[in-house]
Amino acid sequence: MNIDAAKAALAHLDIDDNPPSVKAKSRDFFWYSPVLKDRLDGVCADFVVMPRSQDEVIEVLRICHAHDVPVTVRGAGTGNYGQAMPLKGGCILHMQNMNKIHEIAPGRIVVEPGLVIRDLDRQTRAHSGQELRMTPSTAATATIGGFICGGSGGVGSVRWGVLRDYGNIIRIRVVTAEAEPRVLDFTGEDLARVSHAYGTNGIVTEIELPLAPAYDWVHVFVTHPDFAKASRLAHQISLQDGIAMKLDTVCEAPIAARYFQRFKDHVSETDSVIALMIAPQSMDGFLTFLGHDPEAKLIYRSDANDWPRDPGPAYEYGWNHTTLRALKVEPEITYLQVRYAGEGFLDKIDAIRAHFGDELIQHIEFLKENGVMTAAGLTLVRFTTEERLNEIVQIHEDMGCMIFNPHRYTLEEGGRQIVDDRQLNFKREADPKGILNPGKMIAWEDPNWDFKTMYAYPGLRRA
Amino acid sequence: MNIDAAKAALAHLDIDDNPPSVKAKSRDFFWYSPVLKDRLDGVCADFVVMPRSQDEVIEVLRICHAHDVPVTVRGAGTGNYGQAMPLKGGCILHMQNMNKIHEIAPGRIVVEPGLVIRDLDRQTRAHSGQELRMTPSTAATATIGGFICGGSGGVGSVRWGVLRDYGNIIRIRVVTAEAEPRVLDFTGEDLARVSHAYGTNGIVTEIELPLAPAYDWVHVFVTHPDFAKASRLAHQISLQDGIAMKLDTVCEAPIAARYFQRFKDHVSETDSVIALMIAPQSMDGFLTFLGHDPEAKLIYRSDANDWPRDPGPAYEYGWNHTTLRALKVEPEITYLQVRYAGEGFLDKIDAIRAHFGDELIQHIEFLKENGVMTAAGLTLVRFTTEERLNEIVQIHEDMGCMIFNPHRYTLEEGGRQIVDDRQLNFKREADPKGILNPGKMIAWEDPNWDFKTMYAYPGLRRA
Repeated sequence: MNIDAAKAALAHLDIDDNPPSVKAKSRDFFWYSPVLKDRLDGVCADFVVMPRSQDEVIEVLRICHAHDVPVTVRGAGTGNYGQAMPLKGGCILHMQNMNKIHEIAPGRIVVEPGLVIRDLDRQTRAHSGQELRMTPSTAATATIGGFICGGSGGVGSVRWGVLRDYGNIIRIRVVTAEAEPRVLDFTGEDLARVSHAYGTNGIVTEIELPLAPAYDWVHVFVTHPDFAKASRLAHQISLQDGIAMKLDTVCEAPIAARYFQRFKDHVSETDSVIALMIAPQSMDGFLTFLGHDPEAKLIYRSDANDWPRDPGPAYEYGWNHTTLRALKVEPEITYLQVRYAGEGFLDKIDAIRAHFGDELIQHIEFLKENGVMTAAGLTLVRFTTEERLNEIVQIHEDMGCMIFNPHRYTLEEGGRQIVDDRQLNFKREADPKGILNPGKMIAWEDPNWDFKTMYAYPGLRRA
Repeated sequence: MNIDAAKAALAHLDIDDNPPSVKAKSRDFFWYSPVLKDRLDGVCADFVVMPRSQDEVIEVLRICHAHDVPVTVRGAGTGNYGQAMPLKGGCILHMQNMNKIHEIAPGRIVVEPGLVIRDLDRQTRAHSGQELRMTPSTAATATIGGFICGGSGGVGSVRWGVLRDYGNIIRIRVVTAEAEPRVLDFTGEDLARVSHAYGTNGIVTEIELPLAPAYDWVHVFVTHPDFAKASRLAHQISLQDGIAMKLDTVCEAPIAARYFQRFKDHVSETDSVIALMIAPQSMDGFLTFLGHDPEAKLIYRSDANDWPRDPGPAYEYGWNHTTLRALKVEPEITYLQVRYAGEGFLDKIDAIRAHFGDELIQHIEFLKENGVMTAAGLTLVRFTTEERLNEIVQIHEDMGCMIFNPHRYTLEEGGRQIVDDRQLNFKREADPKGILNPGKMIAWEDPNWDFKTMYAYPGLRRA
């Protein structure tokens, strides 16, 4: 690793080597996890480079390859799995300057990875009343490239499923980290080689995505005195195909009363809250359906309400924003990501609640999986020890609820704990020296790892 | 019934009493059914009036109420259940002159009932790239009012469900048939009182409907040598939420080879055919998924093909257009409408096929029902006798497959064979003399009817 030689060769680019700023750009939202905080705090790159074009990306990769310098790509750093953290130091490839839209067409956009998602949606809305099918709850700051490389689904998944589903990504262009970098386009089955790969096997420089109509979504909050009933009501609402919606979230009491500052005068400690985004033309149908449950009470709709302080968009109370709001109030709170699917999946949540009592607070998101409505749990956990956290994970799995563990920093452990040979094989080809985001793909580092314990990257460098 | 007095009082309106033309306007596509052909051939109104405005509708209803003249409303007459046939004679209220669009907004249209659906979609597409969520396969000639009052779902139902689902109709305005007709707006749960009521309890003068994005749909035909596998493949395709689609039809062999004229050089007698409409931005995802089945062969895509004679839109090979094409070639063919739902619904179709052999040819359409993908069968039947047809219906029901019987002309028998009290109660209020489309609502005519045999309206008048 010859940092100085690489920096010198890249001096004509937009480089940042001011230590506080490099440190800040070496971090993401890994600190949601006390386990990752313990492991990754202090991880820091040597310098940051902010390419303005694909040609500059190629130049960075050629130089870093020549000098054996690790390259960790990042967008806005809103990921929670340490996806964008440079475990071995080296170069941070910050994509903020690559933020141009190349084309907007009916149902389709071609864009550079560094564009902030909210800005993307603003431009497609102004152009032709369109927006992305799905976005993270952090759309206001996250980049589209970060979402494609480090995310999986989110706001919109209640209708469109997740990013890996057929049709939700059209094309990804990547640059390889070889002596002479190549530019390659991936479509069809090959998308799986480079999407959600944390930048471990190529640097994304262009993305083609489908668009959906951008309605003036009505943000809605509904209270319910009973979480089990609220989750069933929200499930039934999600099944109404005639109601155009983008979000269907259920937060168990007392999440809203304790952690949603602007809700204090509108909810009690025993109110669970359903947060939704409904298209204006579907509000009548939605309200009619909601009327079936006399215990459900609409407390807010963004198009007509008398709240003195507006709570902001519903999606900033869903997905991981719920966790963020909770841990701002109670710093010992962390979370899990759970998959509830199959026959009686809501009963599984009831069983989990009965088992854990107050140690967990339920937060679920409805989303489609192969045409079937399922739920993702972004369960709030009152953290005590790492051992207990691992135990909680194990109990979920024993009860038939798969965990995507957000207290792990590798691709495999944050996913289904299986090696993705498609990603591994492409890394062999595209990153022969293993300089891309080192430490994140266990299959590359230690092919025999058995996943029984947390992987600890031997090359980890902390300040 | 004083026809002459009513005609005289309405003489200043657009009236047609030329016998051949009145006869033509007294018919719909009831002749798809040999049973209805036998019962309804010769049914004829006394005159036709074509109102140009809601005020004229009110005038017609006031006069016909005063003179006890039956009023049967119709659009283009593309229904197959005799919905628009004036069983007792009297006045045909032909809505072709009420074809104005009152408003187009993002996701929403307000329109008069007489507008032809293709013209509606052309205007919304030109205005803002929008179109109706669902249309009948007869969109080129059918009116939107006829679809709302006499239809249930169709092209688009694979994504949006059916008309009666929450959110698929926003508002319906009707005029009552009282001494002094009233104008009433229906929304929410009340929509069920007047939608799909065949004009038996009010005349629709304005409809508010949701709109969806109008993509340049790619019309696709795929052959498969095995119907059972083709139906499962088409089902799996329908479950891909990331693939924007509007139609997913499977026609068993030899439908395409025998009945689809322009397919002759492209299919064999043993090819089943899947017909689809896929959004351009979803074609890559679709083709990738299709590639999983090596037996499936794409033979046509509307955006790139070398067929010397274009087959036209895929939707004109789906829903009841399939029946139409078949009976043009083999006049003894008729059809059934079957609901396949619940666990293993495709296995039920296999069982039906095994039971009936060549007497039936399967044609299924995938559609959503409360968030779950199901199938509608528009099964082709080689008709022999009415007795055998009834037997076939009974066997389907014994095998757990509900029939919406298209060989019946009443609301109840063409539906779930239950009295809809909401429609009946509103008829009591809105049509006290029972002049609206008499003979179509059994609950009004004979509240004790037991549905064991076909209802025969005692007031039926044939030429």
